[in-house]
Amino acid sequence: MVEKIKELLKNAKNSSQSICNIPSEQKNYFLSELQKALKNNSKKIISENKNDLVNAKKNKLDDAFIDRLKISEKTVKSMIDGLQNIETLDDPIGNINSLKVMPNGLQVGKMRVPLGVILMIYESRPNVTIDAAALAVKSGNSIILRGGSEAINSNLILGKLIKDSLSKAKIDINVVQVVDNPDRSIVKELIQAKDFIDVIIPRGGKGLIQNISDNAKIPVIKHLDGNCHIYVDEYASLEMAIQVVDNAKTQRYGTCNTLESLVVNKSIAKSFLPKIFKLFRKKDVEMRGCSETLKILTSIKRASTQDFYEEYLAPIISIKIVPTLDSAINFINKHSSGHTESIITENFTHSQKFIKLIDSSSVMINASTRFADGFEYGLGAEVGISTDKFHARGPVGLEGLTSEKYIVLGSGQIRN
Amino acid sequence: MVEKIKELLKNAKNSSQSICNIPSEQKNYFLSELQKALKNNSKKIISENKNDLVNAKKNKLDDAFIDRLKISEKTVKSMIDGLQNIETLDDPIGNINSLKVMPNGLQVGKMRVPLGVILMIYESRPNVTIDAAALAVKSGNSIILRGGSEAINSNLILGKLIKDSLSKAKIDINVVQVVDNPDRSIVKELIQAKDFIDVIIPRGGKGLIQNISDNAKIPVIKHLDGNCHIYVDEYASLEMAIQVVDNAKTQRYGTCNTLESLVVNKSIAKSFLPKIFKLFRKKDVEMRGCSETLKILTSIKRASTQDFYEEYLAPIISIKIVPTLDSAINFINKHSSGHTESIITENFTHSQKFIKLIDSSSVMINASTRFADGFEYGLGAEVGISTDKFHARGPVGLEGLTSEKYIVLGSGQIRN
Repeated sequence: MVEKIKELLKNAKNSSQSICNIPSEQKNYFLSELQKALKNNSKKIISENKNDLVNAKKNKLDDAFIDRLKISEKTVKSMIDGLQNIETLDDPIGNINSLKVMPNGLQVGKMRVPLGVILMIYESRPNVTIDAAALAVKSGNSIILRGGSEAINSNLILGKLIKDSLSKAKIDINVVQVVDNPDRSIVKELIQAKDFIDVIIPRGGKGLIQNISDNAKIPVIKHLDGNCHIYVDEYASLEMAIQVVDNAKTQRYGTCNTLESLVVNKSIAKSFLPKIFKLFRKKDVEMRGCSETLKILTSIKRASTQDFYEEYLAPIISIKIVPTLDSAINFINKHSSGHTESIITENFTHSQKFIKLIDSSSVMINASTRFADGFEYGLGAEVGISTDKFHARGPVGLEGLTSEKYIVLGSGQIRN
Repeated sequence: MVEKIKELLKNAKNSSQSICNIPSEQKNYFLSELQKALKNNSKKIISENKNDLVNAKKNKLDDAFIDRLKISEKTVKSMIDGLQNIETLDDPIGNINSLKVMPNGLQVGKMRVPLGVILMIYESRPNVTIDAAALAVKSGNSIILRGGSEAINSNLILGKLIKDSLSKAKIDINVVQVVDNPDRSIVKELIQAKDFIDVIIPRGGKGLIQNISDNAKIPVIKHLDGNCHIYVDEYASLEMAIQVVDNAKTQRYGTCNTLESLVVNKSIAKSFLPKIFKLFRKKDVEMRGCSETLKILTSIKRASTQDFYEEYLAPIISIKIVPTLDSAINFINKHSSGHTESIITENFTHSQKFIKLIDSSSVMINASTRFADGFEYGLGAEVGISTDKFHARGPVGLEGLTSEKYIVLGSGQIRN
């Protein structure tokens, strides 16, 4: 097995040296071939995926898991749409934004370059195989895909179609490698291979991500939890606040940009909270409030200290009343996971203060936290949302998978 | 001791929340006060530094070490010049390069923000204390400075002057903290404190940097060795090649951007190598060549495999003859440490290929590798040169100490 891993790593490194300088046209040809391949093989993909589904049911995996694992005609269609979208994105590689002339005549600038080799470790969603491969190739990187063992049949057929399409585009097929061995010790080997891999992107539960970043010897683009807040300011339009809070909490319960904690200014709490209470009760959203909240909403449960740190991913919301904007900002910066926070206000100064002082990957004014994703931000696609500050922050698209090197153009300059 | 470290970390974290949003004027006021303080206390600084020098001599530290440790009137002057320069740099914090309007009317952009808390670990040069503190404050970060125990008296007086100047500028004095305890176990604690520190910047020997990045639980901006190459192409102007190679190797031997390995195209080797041989012999630069080189320069030493990986930091150079540009690129990418490489050529296509395919933090055409530094690139100052691809690559100035967050400005948008 060690030999096989070595070969995999070497293949990745070598192929990264060829893919880094391939023209966009050729990369886009791969993407269009892959769209055709998915279309022509959708029945086969769905039938391989059925094997995974049968096994998952045998192994008594829960409904949510099986839902994420399942590939339908619609899933294939959305993979194809995603590829078409990535095909239209501008290729960042080789771009030089500006060249500045120094006093000695040297021209100095930065050229955008690939990171090199990406290791993607993910759980059940097989569509990640297609998305990640497409983004890696378009950004000139080589990628190793380590999906969950529960999705192995789906990932293998998708991996085969990817290799066929790379081959048609005359790109080294080792640019995308699907790890077919379900042995968990492989992950341990891979995340320490710092001479071969440039970045690790884990996607899945908090446990998986924490475990990988604790043990990796390579930089990790982390997407931990999304404990997202909305602060309803004293100068909020209450009508807007209700619409946005409703949307952020109830449009989808299970996503990382879903609202989990509502912060309300004391001076409007009495008029605002009963309205949102009525709405949430109708939709069976459980409210858990601080002691001030309980004075207004007497029938709800008291929130524990832990509640304010919780990413529920469920129809539950914590509620905190604060006296001022400053206390709202402090409360949010203390409890938030740094994903996405929004303020509802009509006051210009308050909006400016909030957007400057909140330390999260996305900070919004008068908008639903649900908008925090690569597609909504115009990145076209994303490999995840980084809650780190280092390298990439927020939705990570093509640019997040690249770096820049300095270039210096001279005419024989020497240093004095 | 554990209590003291906890307090240090808490102070850093808390002060990072105040410095992140301070106007440029106030930060520049600090920088100008610090210039005055250095000027008015230069005698005191030099006398404290003398204590360190006496100890260093007692401990039989070598001349190069003592040279780096020493603060003269000229060193103080250059610290002041550096501060003046940082004062004039544009403050990156809060800048929003563009706001793009999405189809639903949301305005989406990125705002530049500080990283948070920087931990700087460095060896003998006390001027790093001033440079790093100034860059950290200007980029809105809090910084913990852990200098070498050999420079403790110099660092403490500089730290005191920094705190005085912060206080005059009404900035939280905990924004810059000099660790005064020489105990090495403190470093081990600090580099694991991932809830308090956002980035570690080590400066010093390769052993120090390797040790820190192996044990840190926090991202590290690494500056490993500089095994820099110049490739003299078959289409080079030989006159320019000689001038540039001479400058890159002999202008200073001990810097990371010094030329360590010369790669020469076979077709010009016979005319070029004897000329450079004459020059290097005059300057007592030892040449170590590959077997092809030895056929032309019969009197020099044969280079071992290890020689081609070596950062000599001394009057020694390795020489390799290659048949083609492609083999030059492969040879360099294999042996280089990813710092800085330059091609000497008059051929446009060759220059383009070299600049695209060489995987280093700085890639140059017809220029001396000695130009690879923050000041020469117009960054004003640097905290180091990153040989990583992740986050920052090449000279790290103000921007390398920042990140970006997404900002979203709406008018009540909800997601469908």
